[in-house]
Amino acid sequence: MGELCVHSVLVTGANRGLGLGFVQHFLRMPKPPQGGRPKPPQWIFATCRDPKGQRAQELKDLASKHPNLVIIALEVANPASIKAAAAKVAEHLGGSGLNLLINNAGMVKPKTLDSETLEDMTETYTTNTAGPLLMGQAFLPLLKKAAQGSLGSGLSCSKAAIINISSIGGSIASSFGWDMMQVTSYRCSKAALNMLSKCQSLAYREHGVLCVALHPGWVQTEQRCPAGHMPPVTVDDSVQGMLKVLSSLSEKETGTFLDWEGNVIPW
Amino acid sequence: MGELCVHSVLVTGANRGLGLGFVQHFLRMPKPPQGGRPKPPQWIFATCRDPKGQRAQELKDLASKHPNLVIIALEVANPASIKAAAAKVAEHLGGSGLNLLINNAGMVKPKTLDSETLEDMTETYTTNTAGPLLMGQAFLPLLKKAAQGSLGSGLSCSKAAIINISSIGGSIASSFGWDMMQVTSYRCSKAALNMLSKCQSLAYREHGVLCVALHPGWVQTEQRCPAGHMPPVTVDDSVQGMLKVLSSLSEKETGTFLDWEGNVIPW
Repeated sequence: MGELCVHSVLVTGANRGLGLGFVQHFLRMPKPPQGGRPKPPQWIFATCRDPKGQRAQELKDLASKHPNLVIIALEVANPASIKAAAAKVAEHLGGSGLNLLINNAGMVKPKTLDSETLEDMTETYTTNTAGPLLMGQAFLPLLKKAAQGSLGSGLSCSKAAIINISSIGGSIASSFGWDMMQVTSYRCSKAALNMLSKCQSLAYREHGVLCVALHPGWVQTEQRCPAGHMPPVTVDDSVQGMLKVLSSLSEKETGTFLDWEGNVIPW
Repeated sequence: MGELCVHSVLVTGANRGLGLGFVQHFLRMPKPPQGGRPKPPQWIFATCRDPKGQRAQELKDLASKHPNLVIIALEVANPASIKAAAAKVAEHLGGSGLNLLINNAGMVKPKTLDSETLEDMTETYTTNTAGPLLMGQAFLPLLKKAAQGSLGSGLSCSKAAIINISSIGGSIASSFGWDMMQVTSYRCSKAALNMLSKCQSLAYREHGVLCVALHPGWVQTEQRCPAGHMPPVTVDDSVQGMLKVLSSLSEKETGTFLDWEGNVIPW
């Protein structure tokens, strides 16, 4: 297994839950012995919809202590907002590229099949599926630049990668958790996100960009915790597991759907 | 294999292509010998967006000759239009139920991954995925009524069924035809439609309603014919194949993804 060693990373939905967990783990990466390659990223771009709001306080506290953490306003359902964010990231990076794009922002509406509406379907799809597509388009030039600037031939997350945070709820084959949570609009959006990940892997392979869909486990975040059920996986364990998985990926895994422990999930 | 023997069927997008083909095949079903159960449906509801328009002429010509064919205006992306159509269908049916709902209406935009827009994603998803969800909700009372009014225990298309016309383009595992047609918004919408079919099968099984996703083959219709490529399957062969598949389905197949020849397609 290789080491995850990135110059720059961007995480969407970074003000809480898994997104915040990723930021904390990247900040915590140990400084290497003198002369070693630096392990914490030089640039951590943490995006959220409202960086000035109360819900971004923890992120702001972190940024005040870590000069390599940059908070950027980004609404993944808004193409103009995505383009503006990509321009800001490019400005910070100077001439260098972006190694890792983690499409983590997502939403779920706790509905049964019978209570879903057109608005639920559209809103969930826009955030969970169209957002990652638009993010991939907008950041592709920076990802390509990172791939071109890296040594070696194959694909890896240390070189250039798009990581789409999906869910086993999007596995059509498993229909995991149906009796507990129907959440059809969410399941449909995540199945579509898995398809998008496959499409991105096919289109971006020639540019040196690895693409995967990851299931983070059933994690103790606000979003994934229906009343009365305590999910078994902590944010910390999930993020640590996913980072270990990312460090192990090569061209063999591009276009696959893996969980936080590296297991292949059926589509 | 059983015989497909339905009292009533509804087909969306019925003014052309596969939808029109379904209507023609239902109309053509042979009259049985005296005393036999009638084979052509007593009610064929053919829906399209603009029944008064030029593009519905063929359907109107058929309706003028066949009193069991009823044309109904329906826009699958419009919840109010769906509800109005369901009310009209219920009125025609009197107290009886609807046996077969064929969600055939669909759209595709010939785009590459890089040229897809938020509008492409939303519009395609609304028609191809949200539409079939709303159709299932609106027609569930009539489907349940048909299931309750049928003899026997298991599930079948002669009893009550939702047939979602999907595509092998929505198979994440196969990424069929990528080099020829990227059509990411279409692929994502069909992968999501496959998930919806699975969800419908799980939710509606207890109501006696069978649900499957069908790939019609690569068919010679306007929609599926990119410049320079002639698809190998005629509308007639595809519809005949699908009707044969429908006649063979039982509770074992609910929630699966099959092609027009009955083969299982990987998700």
